Amino acid sequence: MEENSSQLAEAIASPQTMEAGEEERDPETTSLQQPLLKRNRTLSSNPLALVGAKVSHIESLDYEINENDLFKHDWRSRSKVQVLQYIFLKWTLAFLVGLLTGLIATLINLAVENIAGYKLLAVVQFIENERYLTGLAYFTGANLILTAFAAVLCVCFAPTAAGPGIPEIKAYLNGIDTPNMFGATTLIVKIFGSIGAVAAGLDLGKEGPLVHIGSCIASLLGQGGPDNYRLKWRWLRYFNNDRDRRDIITCGASSGVCAAFRAPVGGVLFALEEVATWWRSALLWRTFFSTAVVVVVLRAFIEICNSGKCGLFGRGGLIMFDVSDVTVSYHAIDIIPVIIIGILGGVLGSLYNYLLHKVLRLYNLINQKGRMHKLLLSLTLSLFTSVCLFCLPFLAKCQPCDLSTTEACPTNGRSGNFKQFNCPKGYYNDLATLLLTTNDDAVRNIFSSNTPKELQPASLLIFFALYCVLGLFTFGIAVPSGLFLPIILMGSAYGRLLGVVMGSYTNIDQGLYAVLGAASLMAGSMRMTVSLCVIFLELTNNLLLLPITMIVLLIAKTVGDSFNPSIYEIILHLKGLPFLDANPEPWMRNLTVGELADAKSPVVTLCGVEKVSRIVDVLKNTTYNGFPVVDEDVVSPVGQATVATELHGLILRAHLVQVLKKKWFLQERRRTEEWEVREKFTWVELAEREGKIEEVAVTRDEMEMYVDLHPLTNTTPYTVVESMSVAKAMVLFRQVGLRHLLIVPKYQAAGVSPVVGILTRQNLRAYNILTAFPHLAGSNCREKRN
Amino acid sequence: MEENSSQLAEAIASPQTMEAGEEERDPETTSLQQPLLKRNRTLSSNPLALVGAKVSHIESLDYEINENDLFKHDWRSRSKVQVLQYIFLKWTLAFLVGLLTGLIATLINLAVENIAGYKLLAVVQFIENERYLTGLAYFTGANLILTAFAAVLCVCFAPTAAGPGIPEIKAYLNGIDTPNMFGATTLIVKIFGSIGAVAAGLDLGKEGPLVHIGSCIASLLGQGGPDNYRLKWRWLRYFNNDRDRRDIITCGASSGVCAAFRAPVGGVLFALEEVATWWRSALLWRTFFSTAVVVVVLRAFIEICNSGKCGLFGRGGLIMFDVSDVTVSYHAIDIIPVIIIGILGGVLGSLYNYLLHKVLRLYNLINQKGRMHKLLLSLTLSLFTSVCLFCLPFLAKCQPCDLSTTEACPTNGRSGNFKQFNCPKGYYNDLATLLLTTNDDAVRNIFSSNTPKELQPASLLIFFALYCVLGLFTFGIAVPSGLFLPIILMGSAYGRLLGVVMGSYTNIDQGLYAVLGAASLMAGSMRMTVSLCVIFLELTNNLLLLPITMIVLLIAKTVGDSFNPSIYEIILHLKGLPFLDANPEPWMRNLTVGELADAKSPVVTLCGVEKVSRIVDVLKNTTYNGFPVVDEDVVSPVGQATVATELHGLILRAHLVQVLKKKWFLQERRRTEEWEVREKFTWVELAEREGKIEEVAVTRDEMEMYVDLHPLTNTTPYTVVESMSVAKAMVLFRQVGLRHLLIVPKYQAAGVSPVVGILTRQNLRAYNILTAFPHLAGSNCREKRN
Repeated sequence: MEENSSQLAEAIASPQTMEAGEEERDPETTSLQQPLLKRNRTLSSNPLALVGAKVSHIESLDYEINENDLFKHDWRSRSKVQVLQYIFLKWTLAFLVGLLTGLIATLINLAVENIAGYKLLAVVQFIENERYLTGLAYFTGANLILTAFAAVLCVCFAPTAAGPGIPEIKAYLNGIDTPNMFGATTLIVKIFGSIGAVAAGLDLGKEGPLVHIGSCIASLLGQGGPDNYRLKWRWLRYFNNDRDRRDIITCGASSGVCAAFRAPVGGVLFALEEVATWWRSALLWRTFFSTAVVVVVLRAFIEICNSGKCGLFGRGGLIMFDVSDVTVSYHAIDIIPVIIIGILGGVLGSLYNYLLHKVLRLYNLINQKGRMHKLLLSLTLSLFTSVCLFCLPFLAKCQPCDLSTTEACPTNGRSGNFKQFNCPKGYYNDLATLLLTTNDDAVRNIFSSNTPKELQPASLLIFFALYCVLGLFTFGIAVPSGLFLPIILMGSAYGRLLGVVMGSYTNIDQGLYAVLGAASLMAGSMRMTVSLCVIFLELTNNLLLLPITMIVLLIAKTVGDSFNPSIYEIILHLKGLPFLDANPEPWMRNLTVGELADAKSPVVTLCGVEKVSRIVDVLKNTTYNGFPVVDEDVVSPVGQATVATELHGLILRAHLVQVLKKKWFLQERRRTEEWEVREKFTWVELAEREGKIEEVAVTRDEMEMYVDLHPLTNTTPYTVVESMSVAKAMVLFRQVGLRHLLIVPKYQAAGVSPVVGILTRQNLRAYNILTAFPHLAGSNCREKRN
Repeated sequence: MEENSSQLAEAIASPQTMEAGEEERDPETTSLQQPLLKRNRTLSSNPLALVGAKVSHIESLDYEINENDLFKHDWRSRSKVQVLQYIFLKWTLAFLVGLLTGLIATLINLAVENIAGYKLLAVVQFIENERYLTGLAYFTGANLILTAFAAVLCVCFAPTAAGPGIPEIKAYLNGIDTPNMFGATTLIVKIFGSIGAVAAGLDLGKEGPLVHIGSCIASLLGQGGPDNYRLKWRWLRYFNNDRDRRDIITCGASSGVCAAFRAPVGGVLFALEEVATWWRSALLWRTFFSTAVVVVVLRAFIEICNSGKCGLFGRGGLIMFDVSDVTVSYHAIDIIPVIIIGILGGVLGSLYNYLLHKVLRLYNLINQKGRMHKLLLSLTLSLFTSVCLFCLPFLAKCQPCDLSTTEACPTNGRSGNFKQFNCPKGYYNDLATLLLTTNDDAVRNIFSSNTPKELQPASLLIFFALYCVLGLFTFGIAVPSGLFLPIILMGSAYGRLLGVVMGSYTNIDQGLYAVLGAASLMAGSMRMTVSLCVIFLELTNNLLLLPITMIVLLIAKTVGDSFNPSIYEIILHLKGLPFLDANPEPWMRNLTVGELADAKSPVVTLCGVEKVSRIVDVLKNTTYNGFPVVDEDVVSPVGQATVATELHGLILRAHLVQVLKKKWFLQERRRTEEWEVREKFTWVELAEREGKIEEVAVTRDEMEMYVDLHPLTNTTPYTVVESMSVAKAMVLFRQVGLRHLLIVPKYQAAGVSPVVGILTRQNLRAYNILTAFPHLAGSNCREKRN
């Protein structure tokens, strides 16, 4: 992973990666015109990352309440009615997020089931008439068209809609704003792209995209509509800040998980464990409310569809894996295969992470070559997948139907456990059952219980090998793709295979082995634990399964953790998103924030009443987003006539730009009255993330004027003393959700600046610190508190 | 609640409340001998609270890692094996906590069911023979003996075992150490006291005590046994700190909830929502592991007992309320009764909180009079309860048995829905069904579904009235008592009553009404939401119930919150435990920590190398637990010959006492080498909370010697600038889990102390601040972020 930053640098240097329609500061120019930064910058604060498939400028979010004079006035003047409005709206939005996520999930399910269903029925028709080549052509053609539809949408309209979106949501909730990630175009492309990609039979799921869709809906609702057509509704004005947006996006992400797995509690815990960095018990409840609404919507549609009003979409689809009919019975001896599955899951999961990382780096190079390359890559994958799915079943031997089962055998319809394919009457092709069907049905088939003889080891082996290849090479293509389903398919295959191999030595049903295999690979790759456990609990509806699921997950996670980080962390790192971990590295205890600040360029401070020309200068020549405001007094409190400097607070770049835009200038150097600033600015305006210094025109006369920064300054920034260890500063940074952390000196003397440095998210990343202080690496054993 | 502190003061002043065997500093002497505190102390830091039923000295916990030289050395020298040992032990302890909690919960259930079962069978025998007075005498006598057993245990051996214990656990996990709360005596008394009190038919449950029992087990395991017989096992040495103890007690509390309701996910969420202040995703997983073990143990015993090997304990007991056979069907119109139940729950819940607060204050006065009064109070309650339970059924009219049901009617056995009592053959007494049984069976009966005609409105009304009175007056007596069951009984009564009244206007089953009523009153009184919802979900095993349960809980909580705080908060306040809320009050934004520090007595600082006499003086004359260590340098960094003062860190009282005890003195004023301190102290010893200044004898010669405080000083304490608002400081304090927060000046000048104040938990409590700054109250509307 060390090559990652150099690769990013490459990406930045090559201009063809900067695609059209991208509204962002050119990194080349900002990094060259930095005369204020005369020192060699050893501690990196690279504000660039891969968002979707392109390099974008990222910014940190302001979760901290900006306590300036305007905010304080606004706070004091809020009436009870406004507070009630705010609470009412908060709950209404949580309700709407759940409702819309549920409806869209249903829509996607209906569309996928019907499109894939009609496609497969036609293919079966051709096979029945033994027109195999025509069948192959039809199957491949249909899949190519569907893939092309999804890929063109993604490539042309919303590159950020490609992939699962979960890493970016994780980053957002950790405090990193990624541009164009939660827009209306992304949402629409994600919905239709997902339908196309899943219906095309590619080895990808709709689960990850559903989480992204839920988050997009939440973000759009929270800001009152798409970027250019936003409702300027008075009620929404209190939502125009990063804190409330974070809360509603958390609701959206949980709703998405809930819609994917029909698991309300699992959805909440997924958001709690995997996605959200910051959590409050009140948010827990609102999130749960959203997921409950999703479940009600899904239930209602299942009721409607059960009466046959949804086309081919019959019993399948929404109830993903209904394994509640598995009879669980196990003895003490069965702990051995359970442990084996766990270890296998950990080893294979970390191997998968490793290989997927390599493939993604390769794909990154291909994707950089332009749109056509992206498109061609997707189509090649689709072609390969289609041919494999259609041709491999010919390798399997026909199996005689077991006449004792109540299920129809052989079947030619869309679903059913025993597909006839090329077999004579009374026989079925077990590999066709797994391959020539939708992915959801494949999972259902492989999870099916009380069918010990149904699937042959050879077929399972082919299935496993195929999906290992597909799982590695499908994920990175430019269509909306989830990771859950490929991993479930792989995991269930080796799980069931183990069950077949164990044969009579075990009491556990083969379907249950498949479930455990899927769980183990998910834990081995994604390293989720509680949420995964609860999701499987809600899917299987069986408390007795809980202990063995837990053992499998625990072992798989432990084994996997000893090799490499989780797949999400790998992707976050690959994309260059500055995600802050929950636990500080052990060597961070041996480094103080003062030393860290020394490795950075010196801090740029502003005076309480500052000249316009200096502000313009500072804004143009630095990339910082926050500046400490320092006042100088001549009389110090003890009466000596020394100069005392005072830290007034921190002002944000966005607010300075607004001052310049609104030309709130003073003729002389004086402090303003409170009413003066309130005439010009409202607190709500200040919460907007708009305006760039390049757009501001200041005349030469105005350059000589002054600005009183006091009323716009956040007077209560969080600070640490320079002797604080980086480990503790990082805990503070993450726990309180900061954007800037000021460093104050630990000694008291005249003439010393009251701020010795300023730390941001990038400065606290282990990777960046290690680049600046290479001797720290390997100086200690691993963090003992996990 | 304003009179609370004066009442505490009364309690402190009256010497008879300080019971024998209590090892604590006399508050009288410490509050009089405080010459260092010359100012009038306006901001209270009262270190006293009611723990159990007596006034005790409480202390804050050190969740922060104390980064002194010793710790750093220890940290560097830890080997990989030790880290693995630590992780292995952590998981083993989580497993043992679950196992023991599950076993003890089973033991309590078995004992209660058998004792109460044989008692009730004998009573039924007397009634069958129409010897009513003998029956009454037997019933009352047996209950009196059982109550006396529980009360004597509590009063004589472990006063902290009285009550539910949940408020104290909440306080502990918030960061307040309450003495004798998690000891071995408390555990044993709690187990047997709980068996006695529940078997005596008092209106209290075993749910709250189970949570306390789980926490006690966890605490004892974590510290390696009871206080006086602790294992000095090398492996346990890393657990000898407040952070790890907090984690394991969180596991214990969740296991307790899980054991009470057989709800593993609900137990984890209860700990997450209601109990724990501080949370990490790794802890989530370990907590879940503990609860899963509990479920497995409970399940195993249910299997064993179903085969009839547990005496009278047949199908009942462990499966508390198995309402999974309720068929849920409801229409849009049924939303109206659901809303009514929610509102009723909120109103009644807050009324219950209000009245219970009054009763607890009254009982406090009685309990202060001595042990005999406590005992008499308990026995009176038992007598009243027994007479009511036995005599009230005579008021009910006999009902003819419904011959269409499959259940036996009338029954005379221990369980069964249709008790014959005083009725002729073919008839049953519905009130006897609810009253002359164990509380668990009463809940099962009132929750029973598909029995619309079983319970008469008059009987339900009598039942509701009786349990309102009992619920208010039973909770405060000196036996282990839970709040869950009384509230469930009351709530289910009015819920079912509403169901009977609605009659044919509704599609919802009456049993379901009872469940919703119970949920609403719990939400109205305890204000739990997600965890309650998940507990009911796991009890009812029915996802369809989720939406209406959520509506009920949401309404009940909202209505309740508009009247008063939750019952736990009321009890915490009543006991004087300094619980820190999650959200700052709105007026805290208008106050800076500098103003708060001004209202306190001035901070006492120590020099880096300090004279022994000064240390003894400071320790004897202040009650502070932490002292800033300040160094003076003559040369300031800019070269002027001014005096620069430097904040070195914070030293704890406990460490100063250890220095004096070990007589680690220097002849001259010099700084020591690292090896010198390591010869004398180990980091593990420093984590002990032992030693008092009164026990230390220092000779006159030693008084003139010096101590180098540098190696024992925590060099990285958290600090805030004096202009920080109290609201933000409080967020920091709670999020990071602090004990002391240093205030540094915002200006830089010579001769200024680098520390202007020090804030503790007590200083940040809204109640204490309002006492010192009365003008702040009512200056703003309620907190908008909930």
